[in-house]
Amino acid sequence: MSASIRESRRVYLFDSTLRDGAQTQGVDFTAADKLALAGALDRLGVDYVEGGWPGANPTDDAFFAEPPHLETAKLVAFGMTRRPGRSVQNDPGLAALVQAKAPVACIVGKTWDFHVDVALEIPRAENLALIGDSLAYMASQKSEAHFDAEHFFDGFKANRDYALACLAAAQEAGARWLVLCDTNGGTLPHEVSEIVTAVQAALPEAALGIHCHDDTDNAVANSLAAVRAGARQVQGTLNGLGERCGNANLCALIPTFALKTDYEVGVDAPRLAQLTSVSRLLDERLNRPADPAAAYVGARAFAHKGGLHVSAVAKDPRTYEHIEPGLVGNERHIVVSDQAGRSNILARFSEIGLEVDADDPKVAALVEEVKAREFQGFAYDGAEASFELLARRALGQVPDYFELQRFRVMDDRRWNARGELVTESEATVTLEVAGRQMMTVSNGNGPVDALDKALRKALLPTYPQLESMRLTDYKVRILTPQAGTEAVTRVMIESAGRNGRWTTVGVSTNVIDASCKALIDSIFWKLRREGLKEPGVG
Amino acid sequence: MSASIRESRRVYLFDSTLRDGAQTQGVDFTAADKLALAGALDRLGVDYVEGGWPGANPTDDAFFAEPPHLETAKLVAFGMTRRPGRSVQNDPGLAALVQAKAPVACIVGKTWDFHVDVALEIPRAENLALIGDSLAYMASQKSEAHFDAEHFFDGFKANRDYALACLAAAQEAGARWLVLCDTNGGTLPHEVSEIVTAVQAALPEAALGIHCHDDTDNAVANSLAAVRAGARQVQGTLNGLGERCGNANLCALIPTFALKTDYEVGVDAPRLAQLTSVSRLLDERLNRPADPAAAYVGARAFAHKGGLHVSAVAKDPRTYEHIEPGLVGNERHIVVSDQAGRSNILARFSEIGLEVDADDPKVAALVEEVKAREFQGFAYDGAEASFELLARRALGQVPDYFELQRFRVMDDRRWNARGELVTESEATVTLEVAGRQMMTVSNGNGPVDALDKALRKALLPTYPQLESMRLTDYKVRILTPQAGTEAVTRVMIESAGRNGRWTTVGVSTNVIDASCKALIDSIFWKLRREGLKEPGVG
Repeated sequence: MSASIRESRRVYLFDSTLRDGAQTQGVDFTAADKLALAGALDRLGVDYVEGGWPGANPTDDAFFAEPPHLETAKLVAFGMTRRPGRSVQNDPGLAALVQAKAPVACIVGKTWDFHVDVALEIPRAENLALIGDSLAYMASQKSEAHFDAEHFFDGFKANRDYALACLAAAQEAGARWLVLCDTNGGTLPHEVSEIVTAVQAALPEAALGIHCHDDTDNAVANSLAAVRAGARQVQGTLNGLGERCGNANLCALIPTFALKTDYEVGVDAPRLAQLTSVSRLLDERLNRPADPAAAYVGARAFAHKGGLHVSAVAKDPRTYEHIEPGLVGNERHIVVSDQAGRSNILARFSEIGLEVDADDPKVAALVEEVKAREFQGFAYDGAEASFELLARRALGQVPDYFELQRFRVMDDRRWNARGELVTESEATVTLEVAGRQMMTVSNGNGPVDALDKALRKALLPTYPQLESMRLTDYKVRILTPQAGTEAVTRVMIESAGRNGRWTTVGVSTNVIDASCKALIDSIFWKLRREGLKEPGVG
Repeated sequence: MSASIRESRRVYLFDSTLRDGAQTQGVDFTAADKLALAGALDRLGVDYVEGGWPGANPTDDAFFAEPPHLETAKLVAFGMTRRPGRSVQNDPGLAALVQAKAPVACIVGKTWDFHVDVALEIPRAENLALIGDSLAYMASQKSEAHFDAEHFFDGFKANRDYALACLAAAQEAGARWLVLCDTNGGTLPHEVSEIVTAVQAALPEAALGIHCHDDTDNAVANSLAAVRAGARQVQGTLNGLGERCGNANLCALIPTFALKTDYEVGVDAPRLAQLTSVSRLLDERLNRPADPAAAYVGARAFAHKGGLHVSAVAKDPRTYEHIEPGLVGNERHIVVSDQAGRSNILARFSEIGLEVDADDPKVAALVEEVKAREFQGFAYDGAEASFELLARRALGQVPDYFELQRFRVMDDRRWNARGELVTESEATVTLEVAGRQMMTVSNGNGPVDALDKALRKALLPTYPQLESMRLTDYKVRILTPQAGTEAVTRVMIESAGRNGRWTTVGVSTNVIDASCKALIDSIFWKLRREGLKEPGVG
């Protein structure tokens, strides 16, 4: 069977997000997280889902006591070889594995002589017995037993014969897969290629897997190199989650196998189109921002910023895209910046649904204005809403919803009546809206919050649509001044409402003034998006 | 000369952080950022620093008009082949390159027939003339001219002869390096290996470079594969900054070459130990958090979480570390128990020159306070001055130089007498210093500047030492904005004076309050550093 596995082009995907990924500093999956992710991995078409380590912590015990029902993926429980001096029947770790409601067990064991000597501190022959006994026992209890050969590459370099003897012990005990682990992540692709080739030659009947870490930024390449050398199972995690620098990133490996090689994976085209959403699901569950630069699935993976690139992409996307973004459920994005030429800005117009005549002199003036403003410190490539407003204003498409005439913000730190030191912020705004002069005041949780509240108080009677909008992020950067010039503050504000999320930018020498500009842009964008064609029609 | 380059093991490092890295969405370097980073790259031992694209935007023009003085690295200006229908002497892009104060020019040109047809829309033979003319002209004007062969790998696959003809045109025109660019980032390592080998065979005298993008998460592996196939110049960026998924990450490539191969780079052991700090400098300049999972330089790259790994690492770090972290200026981090946290904090004390008795009960209290404050959002890792003050206060080593009793800051945006819209900030502070109550008021360039000036006005009569101190940077970050809990604002302030530069931190729900805390820490640190042992002795 194993020889036929190697001759086939089918590569089996083994996801370890819920086990090795859970080892990551700062990651604590709940049982609900694990259920949601296991289901998503199953629907994606992964072959094995490693759910955790029964006996190691209460979350994993709970997960394996009531495991998810998976359609096609096989659920895997992880454990280690029996302890020295215990029989397999009396080993608490193996007992927890047997009890776990999972058809597959994956057993990790030592294969580096240095580790046997220094970490286990047992004779090397005894380690071979631990491996053989444990795999034989699990093969008898489960439908499949896999062997994770810990530190295999370091072990092979240090003592080739011993490392191979460890694999042979697992193979003879009935292990379905021998998984070569680069546990410390320090092995380079050409070494992986040479060593996997040598292992395959030494153990021609073995079905080999590969498990890589990203400590030299080569985990994906190492996995590909191993497959090219004969491995047919690849372990990895969503978004490369994992201890230290992370594991091999399945969100990069899956589309590479599916779209760029003649290897076959269990992820067909409709499943592959879910990849971006499965990747984002992990970050949502971890309550962290997704990496915008991630291969294939990052928000920026198909973003085009340089002027020349953009004009070529407009002619034919293949000029600057290695794959069609929709194949992995991602999308193209044209950004605007200092680097942008005219064609870039024109492409961005059409993305926001603005059809313009390229020969219109207003357009040339707008291109110059964008460049001049970026030199001042505006950053439109992170602030699409402000860019859209700037463009539509230049084309006369933004009504004067209101005009801010004055604001005053006061921050007061003092002792209150109960003897506590408190800081209070209060903002007063004067503005004209729908022909009426409004003057309002509000306090807030800091000056920007107070200003935001005072603005809304003045505007809500005319524009009740603003009720649903809220500030979700606020970033400040001081642009380092050239010698002798005034420092400039750039504020970026993210807002959210029923129109999604949008970002605006304000620049000024005064941080409160910059914040106010970004706030006003945010409100204008919202009102325009709500379809208000003229001021004061709420 | 070229053949000897290939036979040598010396690999030349070409940094494009300031040019291709600047293409990244959300990245806008100021001229000051560029100067700081160019200097750091030079000190790190990079061979070429590509500073930007003269003529493309005002920032790059300003940079090349007054370029940094580099000790060993050569400064490179980037540009493209002449436009069709122009002579090299009349091409505005090449003119900007000639004017740029940089000894090296790097010229990008098309090598993929599809791009010549679809993007340039000129006859293929004419593109060869663009390349030859432009390289010959730059070779006559600069000490070196390099050729960036855009889309070389796609071009080679589509039309091998044409792609090679483009390289040959550049080579014959005198290009010092022919850099094979995987512009779309879609090429896999085994393809890079095959194609670079074929190019080297076709052009045996050529000195080849490699320029990779990370769209399949293989940019580092592709660069290594190219070097193994004969390339001797590697282009990349700090932290893999770059358009879409980024460029090849020099922070991974440099230590891999230096520590894991027999190739030689211009980064010796003392320079390599600066790598982590150069990597962090880039993120500081971009005001973004560093990637904790980055290979070699990430905060988590040598972190060990819990259990078996930790006890093995305690026996011998080589058990779970692929290199010694200090080689790249990084450090081991053990994430386990309160006990480990305590020894960690004690280690940080000795780092700032504070020798404490570990059994002193004050130390135990301080350890608890540091942990509680870090949980609130204080980040003492980036704010050594605040950490030192906190520690010395707990040990009774910081005099009460003054006590701030109240402040009030007002920001007022209104029309002035000349009909201009202006924003003014005014701060009032009440404080007790040397037994006297002082109340002062000042306006400023924004609320924090006003507050800073009012504080100094109140303190200068007592502490004239403060005259020499100034604010040099100010950063704001909102913590846990999505969590539904109250957002907390963290302000970091960098100050400078004759005692060097120091950074302090303040945390509050109110940005002005947080700024005030960081300001006061900064002043206290300065007064202590000036050797003032008791308050009011100016």
